Amino acid sequence: MNIYLDNSATTKPHDEVIEYMVSVMRESYGNPSSLHGAGLAAERIVREARGRVAAVFGAKTACVIFTSGGTESNNTAIIRGALSRRRQGRRVITTRAEHPSVLESCAALAAEGFDIVYADVDSDGRVIPASVEALANDNTVLISCIHVNNETGVIQPTDAVFDIAEACGRRAGRRIGVHVDAVQSFGKLSVASLARRADFISVSAHKLHGPKGAGALFVARDARIEPLIVGGGQERGLRSGTENVPAIAGFGLAALMAGRDPNARAERIAACKRRLLEGISAGVDDIKLNGSCGTDAVPHILNISFLGVKGEVLLHDLERHGVFVSTGAACSSKKKGGSRVLAAMGLSAAESEGAIRFSLGDFNTEEEMDRAAEAVCSCVRRFRNLGRYR
Amino acid sequence: MNIYLDNSATTKPHDEVIEYMVSVMRESYGNPSSLHGAGLAAERIVREARGRVAAVFGAKTACVIFTSGGTESNNTAIIRGALSRRRQGRRVITTRAEHPSVLESCAALAAEGFDIVYADVDSDGRVIPASVEALANDNTVLISCIHVNNETGVIQPTDAVFDIAEACGRRAGRRIGVHVDAVQSFGKLSVASLARRADFISVSAHKLHGPKGAGALFVARDARIEPLIVGGGQERGLRSGTENVPAIAGFGLAALMAGRDPNARAERIAACKRRLLEGISAGVDDIKLNGSCGTDAVPHILNISFLGVKGEVLLHDLERHGVFVSTGAACSSKKKGGSRVLAAMGLSAAESEGAIRFSLGDFNTEEEMDRAAEAVCSCVRRFRNLGRYR
Repeated sequence: MNIYLDNSATTKPHDEVIEYMVSVMRESYGNPSSLHGAGLAAERIVREARGRVAAVFGAKTACVIFTSGGTESNNTAIIRGALSRRRQGRRVITTRAEHPSVLESCAALAAEGFDIVYADVDSDGRVIPASVEALANDNTVLISCIHVNNETGVIQPTDAVFDIAEACGRRAGRRIGVHVDAVQSFGKLSVASLARRADFISVSAHKLHGPKGAGALFVARDARIEPLIVGGGQERGLRSGTENVPAIAGFGLAALMAGRDPNARAERIAACKRRLLEGISAGVDDIKLNGSCGTDAVPHILNISFLGVKGEVLLHDLERHGVFVSTGAACSSKKKGGSRVLAAMGLSAAESEGAIRFSLGDFNTEEEMDRAAEAVCSCVRRFRNLGRYR
Repeated sequence: MNIYLDNSATTKPHDEVIEYMVSVMRESYGNPSSLHGAGLAAERIVREARGRVAAVFGAKTACVIFTSGGTESNNTAIIRGALSRRRQGRRVITTRAEHPSVLESCAALAAEGFDIVYADVDSDGRVIPASVEALANDNTVLISCIHVNNETGVIQPTDAVFDIAEACGRRAGRRIGVHVDAVQSFGKLSVASLARRADFISVSAHKLHGPKGAGALFVARDARIEPLIVGGGQERGLRSGTENVPAIAGFGLAALMAGRDPNARAERIAACKRRLLEGISAGVDDIKLNGSCGTDAVPHILNISFLGVKGEVLLHDLERHGVFVSTGAACSSKKKGGSRVLAAMGLSAAESEGAIRFSLGDFNTEEEMDRAAEAVCSCVRRFRNLGRYR
């Protein structure tokens, strides 16, 4: 049996989610915009899902805009959030530990004349609040900060970011928008405290055993935003296009399931992560833990540099043992060049090159961790014994 | 048993499509960008689906960009197609018989300083080529014309539009982009001849018994375009975000199934449409057929004005008989005001108000048509007998 440790790239949907989606596709296939009963049935399903996702935010249902996924949510919040504020200023602050969809959205704004600046991170990949503060000037309209970094699992000091945005906004005499990319944390950490302070929060279904093709953008009640995708005016005019009813339904159910016994689930995954790290640490030396393993890191991501080993070679070697991992974020895994996040943390080229991300999900077991650690140690030793090491 | 006659709003997915999607969700849940076997398996599924969709266009697979649906495809082609040509000119030509996602994309361009002009349609809703020609000046960069109108089913003279774009391009000394919204025709009429001449073609899976949440944009090999959604660089950099693998897989299968025996399928649906029209015509008078019923109309859409009847009241009355229809395009059905398309055709307010669209799909039967016609006649007679008629 394969051991899937790439849950931050995507997860296997729960069986219950798949079954629900099938029943929606078979029985409630109407268009929610249609006025007849088949349309109303589909609309009710979307409404229920919206309630389930809103409940995770502890927010009103009107705050949840369904999108096609986290990337679209990030694009909408950043590009259209900043453009709708362009008369107030042109500075957008983000960090050096963001997902490509955030960085590329910022690049699109730069092409429109925006001034994009990047806050530094410390050696654990944690955003340095003083760096954000130093960048926050009167020209600032939006700050975008990830909640949990997708490569290292470190939890960012978002409260400090909210404080800085508020202080800066007071000085500028207007509200500064804050966007949080919570794709890696939604359904794993509480996001209700974020929703009380953020203007926009991006989330995605397929990272929490929900389906691909559904995400959401939390939009605070008074937050200014324009749609990225226009047309029939669905989603309160903020996201046009026929709603992806089955995927939205599956997203709602996955969000509901993620809310059941969250502490026990997190503890189970944390125990798996500890076991995996212990097994690896006991079997090989010269490893470097990237990102904290303390309380400011999520339980489901473990990033380790194996010195003297090429991460990509290790990945394929592990694959032959049926262990699926990644060298960094999936969406940039086919690109040349090392991880920008690890470079920003100050890792050397060799450390970055030897990095492997293990990301856990609800279906992993401690027994799998033992087998995965054994495979990792065997592969690393074999590689190092080839003589290229020291 | 309900009779679903709103297939232009959305269709019920084929059982085979649902079963395939389930197997993909259960067994091939990887992220296509992941380097390991689970990623490669997902990538292979996307590649197969791309081949199946490309085959309908008679085009190379590299021409197919998967999106979340027709609305996103229209937004991408029109907004980003025009913006990428903004240095050549600012005029965009469209028609008075377009989907809201085309009209709103044009409105977004108008806000960026583009000059949007609208070609007229005749009383059948057919675009008048001379009107397009009169609007095509040296400042023109893009022409967007629907293939089959979603309200009337009329097939537009796209070849004339291509000719005009070419002639105008020769005068201007550069290529003028042509976008075709083929959401209503893909899998029903041949689109291969469009793909030989168009720069962009928008299509959607859920109109041909495929899943919601998947569409495609055909992009000709040499066509200039920028992405609407940026990030990890999926879909040749033209549409970022984790691919919706199960929906893309379902789309591919639906496209493949639509290609099986297309003439027999079209003839079967045409026979249903004739039977429905005959049944209605025999039972009530004072009806007006909107759009042609000849060879320049698709077999699956029938739009009729019942004079003296309010379409929305008739819709709900029919619903009580288990017959699901629409008053116009689903996505604007909840908005106030009559159909812009019917108004452009010169219908009076009363004619437009009494319009009902019957749209057929693969699952409709001739027996259903008899029952639907009977219900329509009964409802129309009842409504007229209430004394509000004449």
